[in-house]
Amino acid sequence: MSAPALATTSPVEHPVLDVLARRWSPRAFDDTAVIDEQKLSNALEAARWAPSAANSQPWRFVVARRGSALHDQIHASLLGANQLWADRAAVLIVAVAETTKEDGNPYTHAVYDLGQAVAHLSVQAHHDGLVVHQMSGFDPETMTSIVGLDERFTPMTVVALGELGDASTLPEVLQAREIAPRSRRPINETVIVNH
Amino acid sequence: MSAPALATTSPVEHPVLDVLARRWSPRAFDDTAVIDEQKLSNALEAARWAPSAANSQPWRFVVARRGSALHDQIHASLLGANQLWADRAAVLIVAVAETTKEDGNPYTHAVYDLGQAVAHLSVQAHHDGLVVHQMSGFDPETMTSIVGLDERFTPMTVVALGELGDASTLPEVLQAREIAPRSRRPINETVIVNH
Repeated sequence: MSAPALATTSPVEHPVLDVLARRWSPRAFDDTAVIDEQKLSNALEAARWAPSAANSQPWRFVVARRGSALHDQIHASLLGANQLWADRAAVLIVAVAETTKEDGNPYTHAVYDLGQAVAHLSVQAHHDGLVVHQMSGFDPETMTSIVGLDERFTPMTVVALGELGDASTLPEVLQAREIAPRSRRPINETVIVNH
Repeated sequence: MSAPALATTSPVEHPVLDVLARRWSPRAFDDTAVIDEQKLSNALEAARWAPSAANSQPWRFVVARRGSALHDQIHASLLGANQLWADRAAVLIVAVAETTKEDGNPYTHAVYDLGQAVAHLSVQAHHDGLVVHQMSGFDPETMTSIVGLDERFTPMTVVALGELGDASTLPEVLQAREIAPRSRRPINETVIVNH
């Protein structure tokens, strides 16, 4: 399926890569589409090559395909409105930061670098015609238990990955958000000093 | 200047976007090149459209062009080997996370989302023929003071942005790292659960 037309209506002020201008976070995943394993590998490969502080690569991923018990468990741990749609995604990925080093000291940039890695994953997935929607709403302790994480690791987001489906099949409460235009603060409110 | 050939020798296992496969973090910035303002705007625009938890956009940027007093101050605050090359970059950007909300509560995903925004910035810049090198080595308190940040905000990285220069002009101690092949852990050590 080609990328949706939504982002072409967004007020992008300067020319950026199509894949960045058109990327969005839908909820209407196709709940029948099985993940294309090559595209999943490509997305993970993109994450792999993200930069990180001293090349520490402080990221880990838990990959659960729809139909697995783990997919059900991850979905069940989500909070709020995420519950209403995330089970549709062909894959749920728990994005985990290595927040503590093996020697017990903190990785100060683990969460930042995980964000970079998932951004790369998302860009590649959208380029390959998949869609991504990240969620922060879950109980970290429950997720740690489900996934079996050592205390050095912190689950930060759940990344829904799959193909875009039909928005009209979403629960009514989600439909307005699904078609709302994307919006962002103007750049001059983000660049707080400009010398 | 075209992108360097380095990344084509990296062991990318699955096909990913050229801009992701070839992106790297050089030190040999061209210390005479003035920033192309349109490309700088494009990079900031790419950051602008990154995703964030509940579209909170918890990122701010401090932009300092070479020749400004602020560029000198940011460079002076860098630690270790970053001191040896970062003054060459046409622009130094301090990437700042809004770690505390206006009501005093924490933004739990501010640092993660800032990482995503800088990843977008970096991808766009490399697409436009610029190069980016992020640094985490600086004293946060010094940087907060230089930039004049409210305590709700945390400087996380300094992003060197500019054109690639001649590696042979780098101090000798940096030359081996500049031409070292990029390396990453295999994907099967990053995907810790695969169901």
